[in-house]
Amino acid sequence: MKFIHTADWHLGKLVHGVYMTENQREALNQFIEIVAEEKPDAVVIAGDLYDRSVPPTDAVDLLDEILFKINVELSTPVVAIAGNHDSAERLSFGSSWYKHSQFYLSGKLTKSFKPVQVNGVNFYLVPFAEPGVVRQLLEDDSIHSHQDAMKALIGKMEEHLNPNEPNVLVGHAFVLGGQTSDSERVLSVGGSGCVGAELFEPFSYTALGHLHSPDAIKHDKVKYSGSLLKYSFSEAKQNKSISIIEMDEKGNFSHRYRSLNPTHDMRELEGHLEELLDPFFYEKQRLHDYLKITLLDEGALLDPINKLRQVYPNVLHLERKIDITDMKKKQSFNITRNEKKSELDLFEQFYTEMTTSEFSSDKKEVMADVIEKVLREEAVK
Amino acid sequence: MKFIHTADWHLGKLVHGVYMTENQREALNQFIEIVAEEKPDAVVIAGDLYDRSVPPTDAVDLLDEILFKINVELSTPVVAIAGNHDSAERLSFGSSWYKHSQFYLSGKLTKSFKPVQVNGVNFYLVPFAEPGVVRQLLEDDSIHSHQDAMKALIGKMEEHLNPNEPNVLVGHAFVLGGQTSDSERVLSVGGSGCVGAELFEPFSYTALGHLHSPDAIKHDKVKYSGSLLKYSFSEAKQNKSISIIEMDEKGNFSHRYRSLNPTHDMRELEGHLEELLDPFFYEKQRLHDYLKITLLDEGALLDPINKLRQVYPNVLHLERKIDITDMKKKQSFNITRNEKKSELDLFEQFYTEMTTSEFSSDKKEVMADVIEKVLREEAVK
Repeated sequence: MKFIHTADWHLGKLVHGVYMTENQREALNQFIEIVAEEKPDAVVIAGDLYDRSVPPTDAVDLLDEILFKINVELSTPVVAIAGNHDSAERLSFGSSWYKHSQFYLSGKLTKSFKPVQVNGVNFYLVPFAEPGVVRQLLEDDSIHSHQDAMKALIGKMEEHLNPNEPNVLVGHAFVLGGQTSDSERVLSVGGSGCVGAELFEPFSYTALGHLHSPDAIKHDKVKYSGSLLKYSFSEAKQNKSISIIEMDEKGNFSHRYRSLNPTHDMRELEGHLEELLDPFFYEKQRLHDYLKITLLDEGALLDPINKLRQVYPNVLHLERKIDITDMKKKQSFNITRNEKKSELDLFEQFYTEMTTSEFSSDKKEVMADVIEKVLREEAVK
Repeated sequence: MKFIHTADWHLGKLVHGVYMTENQREALNQFIEIVAEEKPDAVVIAGDLYDRSVPPTDAVDLLDEILFKINVELSTPVVAIAGNHDSAERLSFGSSWYKHSQFYLSGKLTKSFKPVQVNGVNFYLVPFAEPGVVRQLLEDDSIHSHQDAMKALIGKMEEHLNPNEPNVLVGHAFVLGGQTSDSERVLSVGGSGCVGAELFEPFSYTALGHLHSPDAIKHDKVKYSGSLLKYSFSEAKQNKSISIIEMDEKGNFSHRYRSLNPTHDMRELEGHLEELLDPFFYEKQRLHDYLKITLLDEGALLDPINKLRQVYPNVLHLERKIDITDMKKKQSFNITRNEKKSELDLFEQFYTEMTTSEFSSDKKEVMADVIEKVLREEAVK
């Protein structure tokens, strides 16, 4: 049995004021090509189909269109859950009608802990729910954290689970553990939101969503697929992919990645303005990528964002490595009329005001020469 | 062929700050009983399923539950369109999956002008759309009003319409015409939002939504079903019902109404506070109805809303027939220390300040007597 594991589509996402919908449409069309080619027995989507509980209407249209293509046109069973960004209720609407074409969409957590069976594999669906919701649903006052909640839910599932069958949990949670985990990491993340990977031991494979990197956890059987696309510059260096799992009737599986190739990558670029605007440099660049540019120039620059956008139309964020002013550290640039300062003193004050670098003795020498020259010419007039 | 015509459910409606959802659930459960009893070949819902484009999640849950019961559990085909209160895109999500169980939900207007066929009847679905949307869809710049838009759409439908078959249009519009229409009425409503009933001539029956009274139009073949419930006090005296239509293969039909009986009616009540709080009066009342109460009392009343709510818990709106003060018409109630006014003059000033009625000579006489008595007693002390 072969299935594709994906998650965190975040349809309707807005990044630095730019809607990603057209990019998402392109990526999902590539996804559909992969589905057509791989012919999996199921597509598993582990939550955050939308970016927010009330997504823009074109994102609603897009999800409808893509799921219809996969499920109905390509006759591929779909197993999907709501993530923390989705509205459980709004996503659930109509889901009872979808089942006849093997589209199993679990928006709201319910008391049914029975799996959905697709081609011999049992899929246990755990849509995102706050600990308080699980506490109420299970009438168990001991549930306070996500760890408690997941443990209790898995406990319910284990009552009927046959360990000799292939069992897959589909969840949306912040899971820690496995090879890379150490106690510092758990502590630094802050306990109550996290779920330990050891809880998923009863399952042959755990298909997770929530963290956007497929490398977020190194574990044999508990895996994130990663998000569909890069959704922030902190993800610029992450790999984005979908996972292809082939599982036998014992639950043993092989796992491989396939990548999507978006027209617009999301990248960080660093350099001096002049260099970035130099054709020798930029002709080698993918100019239409979404960019965060960090300028290394000192001193004031005239309208750098518009100059950059003439070459790189999708600059989403511009930063200066050296802050032009840091008013708190410095005295303000005030000259009273009574003060008599030399031109060099005045320039030094101005320089330190406007840059963060030192007005070194080399610089002082150059400037003193310039001032002397100018004053001499003034005197000649 | 028998079908039920209903419209304007407005799920998630808020009336004077009170959510109608539980009332709507009760009414829809009665509706389901009628469906179970009548066993129609289709249920037609002519728009405004929700009250707004992003309805509260419990309204989403309710609609999902009710439609599933009608369509899947009672195996009844459903034909529904979006109204002006619905979001065409949000309502459309998933509708492609519904068709296999003969649930035809048309959220967005499309270029397909073919009818949905249910049990030998052709249903032409016209979801609500602004004239601009229709202009763009049909690429017809002459479309400016709802009248133009409906005329153009029906023109497209007529290209394929077989007048010897039973044809039903399902629409959501402000339709005028028929027996009660006269030019004043059309003028007073203001032209561009309205659609003339004569446009629907090609259809055996036109099932409309938008206006909340089933009597909004008197026409043999073009009818409103009216809303599910009363949704404002201006509807307090309207009949609320659903329409049962039985149609033969020529399109001839019989039409009758069935009523729902909500626990909470919406009514207006008028009287003096004392009378309304008198058990002799209120014991004959349905105390839990949603009420607009108009008090006829003159003068100041101490906390009337809370007194009334102890008897009538669902007072939604309280009005006074006589405004306590109308500051613009009267001089303000100022007494300067230098002024010497008689007690009677002072009382007259106070009385006219606090009521809108005249301080008649009868009243003056009574008051003069009282003042004289009091002053005499004061003098004796």
